[in-house]
Amino acid sequence: MKAKRIHRIAAITKVLVENPFKTINLNFFADALNCAKSSISEDITIIRETFKKFNMGDIETISGASGGVMYKSLVDLKETCSILQNLAKRLSRPERILPGGFIFMTDILFSPDLASKIGKIFATRFHTANPDFVVTVETKGIPLALMTANYLNLPLVTIRRNSRVTEGTSVSINYVSGSTKKIQTMSLAKRSLPQGARVVFIDDFLKAGGTIKGMTELMDEFEAKVVGVGVLISTKHPQKKLVEEYTSLLVLNEIDEFSGIIDIAPVELI
Amino acid sequence: MKAKRIHRIAAITKVLVENPFKTINLNFFADALNCAKSSISEDITIIRETFKKFNMGDIETISGASGGVMYKSLVDLKETCSILQNLAKRLSRPERILPGGFIFMTDILFSPDLASKIGKIFATRFHTANPDFVVTVETKGIPLALMTANYLNLPLVTIRRNSRVTEGTSVSINYVSGSTKKIQTMSLAKRSLPQGARVVFIDDFLKAGGTIKGMTELMDEFEAKVVGVGVLISTKHPQKKLVEEYTSLLVLNEIDEFSGIIDIAPVELI
Repeated sequence: MKAKRIHRIAAITKVLVENPFKTINLNFFADALNCAKSSISEDITIIRETFKKFNMGDIETISGASGGVMYKSLVDLKETCSILQNLAKRLSRPERILPGGFIFMTDILFSPDLASKIGKIFATRFHTANPDFVVTVETKGIPLALMTANYLNLPLVTIRRNSRVTEGTSVSINYVSGSTKKIQTMSLAKRSLPQGARVVFIDDFLKAGGTIKGMTELMDEFEAKVVGVGVLISTKHPQKKLVEEYTSLLVLNEIDEFSGIIDIAPVELI
Repeated sequence: MKAKRIHRIAAITKVLVENPFKTINLNFFADALNCAKSSISEDITIIRETFKKFNMGDIETISGASGGVMYKSLVDLKETCSILQNLAKRLSRPERILPGGFIFMTDILFSPDLASKIGKIFATRFHTANPDFVVTVETKGIPLALMTANYLNLPLVTIRRNSRVTEGTSVSINYVSGSTKKIQTMSLAKRSLPQGARVVFIDDFLKAGGTIKGMTELMDEFEAKVVGVGVLISTKHPQKKLVEEYTSLLVLNEIDEFSGIIDIAPVELI
């Protein structure tokens, strides 16, 4: 049975939104909806116009034999600022201060809704670097990294704190934590990442940068190229980090355990 | 500017698909799209018909003051079977066998695409149990659990293998691994889960059931009610598990390290 335009628009929109950064051939829609490719093209134009009008991301047409249509789940600057301002507000509540001057933020890091929003911001930031993989280190960075990978239509590779018996041959490195100066280990199964991949590294927190430096060294062992580093929060101190280039979304200026003040703010993004 | 029906359909579909199991008030759409609520109602009817026709999930209307419309990201039996058959095929490739008779499956567990599909299957399975939280134990179950939580519009709570200094007061329990008989620890920050919550537990692998038993004991400390247990893979042996009720999607019958055969198959779902 032939589907009417109004139904096709709903069906195509759903498939596109559920498959960001994935090229979908117009024949797929033509077959599923039992109509001509030219009609699908017109449907796509309508959806593109709508998304443009309401700042809902871009829809790109890729021509050629392997061509089709791709939904780019991009988020504009205005929405990004609003997400980050909200997040900074939630994170700065005094009841989040833990003994030792830490912030409780596990609930936020593991919230699918927030991880999804942050993932979209990172995807917007890094899609032009043409990464092949998103990489993170267990545990708290996983949700953000997974959602970033999801929006970029890329596989996620998770570096472990210990090599596990169930992952086969792995490469391990020792690194010195930038803030605690402790020697730590990270390892990655050999078959998790092919040689020479382009990777974007996503993590929740950057203080001195020891983890990112360790990760970069581990990536060297796989001859991988780190084409982007994104962290949700970086601390103002130490100002000199072990890593030079990174994108941080929030900056933690200060935690005052005694007065109960957490000073955290969005970074100015350009 | 007023949006035409065809544009409204695209915009509303996108918002619904990106917010599964979340009640969205019709006024939100009426305001954003600058049109009457009655028109939005008609749009929703069209989208509902389309989703029904193409097995794309349900759209439910909730009446009353706090009412609105909700997209239920449900997946039907046919699609579930097709996803699980594909997955079983991928997992049974001989090159996945690791020394010691393990299967390499990290790439699959951390694939956003597959985690998303599995998450949808678990959401379909457990949404009627009215859970308040999805719970998992680090590390490999996190992507499946996060995607399940995402499709159910619920927060995710991740139990740690060790208590961390950055999470404040936590409750720890010791448990005996069902297969290795080793004593292990799991812990959860006190403020991660309110007393008396209804939880669904999601994990990647179930052998003897020690982890799930431990998790159940930990949940007792929070007076939480475990209203569902979902695992991606359970092993045929031991047949007697430490946990009685669970939903497993795949059964691992046997791994023969010498002949290179992995016998894994979808469970018959009803």
